[in-house]
Amino acid sequence: MKALWFSDKLELLEHLPVPTPDKNEALIKVLVAGICNTDLEIVKGYMNFNGVIGHEFVGRVVEINGESKELQGKRVVGEINCGCGQCPLCRRGLERHCQEREVLGILGKNGCFAEYITLPLKNLHEVPDTIEDEKAVFVEPLAAALEILDQVHFHPGDKVLVLGDGKLGVLISLALRQTMADILLAGKHSSKMHVVSSQGIRTKHIEEVTTDSDRFDYVVEATGSSSGLGTAFRLLRPRGTVILKSTYAGRNEIDLAPAVINEITIVGSRCGCFPPALNYLDKYLDTKPMISAVFKFRNALKAIESAEKKESLKVLLDMR
Amino acid sequence: MKALWFSDKLELLEHLPVPTPDKNEALIKVLVAGICNTDLEIVKGYMNFNGVIGHEFVGRVVEINGESKELQGKRVVGEINCGCGQCPLCRRGLERHCQEREVLGILGKNGCFAEYITLPLKNLHEVPDTIEDEKAVFVEPLAAALEILDQVHFHPGDKVLVLGDGKLGVLISLALRQTMADILLAGKHSSKMHVVSSQGIRTKHIEEVTTDSDRFDYVVEATGSSSGLGTAFRLLRPRGTVILKSTYAGRNEIDLAPAVINEITIVGSRCGCFPPALNYLDKYLDTKPMISAVFKFRNALKAIESAEKKESLKVLLDMR
Repeated sequence: MKALWFSDKLELLEHLPVPTPDKNEALIKVLVAGICNTDLEIVKGYMNFNGVIGHEFVGRVVEINGESKELQGKRVVGEINCGCGQCPLCRRGLERHCQEREVLGILGKNGCFAEYITLPLKNLHEVPDTIEDEKAVFVEPLAAALEILDQVHFHPGDKVLVLGDGKLGVLISLALRQTMADILLAGKHSSKMHVVSSQGIRTKHIEEVTTDSDRFDYVVEATGSSSGLGTAFRLLRPRGTVILKSTYAGRNEIDLAPAVINEITIVGSRCGCFPPALNYLDKYLDTKPMISAVFKFRNALKAIESAEKKESLKVLLDMR
Repeated sequence: MKALWFSDKLELLEHLPVPTPDKNEALIKVLVAGICNTDLEIVKGYMNFNGVIGHEFVGRVVEINGESKELQGKRVVGEINCGCGQCPLCRRGLERHCQEREVLGILGKNGCFAEYITLPLKNLHEVPDTIEDEKAVFVEPLAAALEILDQVHFHPGDKVLVLGDGKLGVLISLALRQTMADILLAGKHSSKMHVVSSQGIRTKHIEEVTTDSDRFDYVVEATGSSSGLGTAFRLLRPRGTVILKSTYAGRNEIDLAPAVINEITIVGSRCGCFPPALNYLDKYLDTKPMISAVFKFRNALKAIESAEKKESLKVLLDMR
């Protein structure tokens, strides 16, 4: 099968063997996959991952190794963390924090920029017919956006700044507006911010966001850049909260004294659960304006280049 | 008056003018003062402070500029943050976060390593006769320790690691034991840890703290060193909380990816309120074992040298 492989460099392999599903796993034909910033960071060295990259997908189950056949032939999305199923974290429903986990295309398991993948049956969720492929592929990043609501309780009227107009910042802005908090997206690219402002959410160029009036109760740091946290500290009120979404390769220099002095809380936030995201996607979210380009899988390397451009939002790979 | 002055270098001035209390302020004769790590950091450049250092004291009110004379002649301790009294933070009782504040011996206001200081009357709390001077001087750092309980809810049985056996780490361990959480103090100095273990709290050399068994639900980072946060990340369970107490001069390199990946919460924690600390001090805390040395004020420079030694806990200055 074709697959986009990373070790030292990224290359489109033509003849990787189709994987074999383990017991209670499914073999899935990937239909559409989405390129995430984490994929771009992996190519820069994040997580020291070698293998097939990619973790956002919608696919169709073509083979099941196990008793339960109800997903045979179904269109599915898949949670990307594969836990041991035995440890206290897995038993509490936190497989995504299992210390023995594999993570699709990120940690120890080949990802979905490939014609076929395997995943445990328990990771899969059937996609309703009302959600087309190009929309279903947003379920993983949307679940990551909604994870914030699992961790933090926004009150109506709370002043929330989403920092960064990339794929995740845009999706977070659209996901958080249901909370009745007062959302402002700050970025640098008017074309990307327009996707959000055209749906009724306020946006501002980051350099125009000042602390002249009240500061923010919450800042969601989704810039993907090491300078984002310092900006968040500057714009947050004392005892406010930063939700930290950015991950990137490498260490960086941070002065954490403002966090102590202003008693700021920093909440690290990563993956979320799929069922509420599927529901939200179906009922509330227009994803079309977030799609910058769709590439046939044979042009995957060009798709990665396209996703790296600053003005890009979501770039999709079409394996159909 | 005598005062310990810092600008470029630290010197004991002999003839600084006695300060004049503003309207609704008191002039206080300092009786005993305590040396805090923040003082030592200021001498390294933290906060770019120039002036009289010191913020932990007990003193006696000798003059009042204002109508209310009830504290005249009384023995008092004083909250160190002087807010504007007008802003939304001050009105919510959070003067310690007022953006216009002065902070005794730390920000814009001469501190208490001097024979006399001034403070607003509203900052002062009378000290009960049952608390002697050498104990009363612990109220400020104890309030900072108890501030953690204002921010975080420990449940009985929660596994809490206090990282750092310095003055603050020891005090935090003794303050948190009332919560019924399972407290472990990890440090490097057996003599300092003995102060805690002799009062029934478990201690361990930091290098013997492993993640073999369950990780910690909470880590209180009170090492005063830039490596503390990385250690905290390593010893904390996924979705655990670090309480960040250390402040130090300068930036440092941190990899925050573990905070995002493990969805760790970091809570910056600084000063606390005095009334619960005075009460706790009176009823529950034996501070004698925490006093490493008491120096007459004329030997203040030697006292600072003594406080800088790794084996020191609290060093006091006696101005009586």
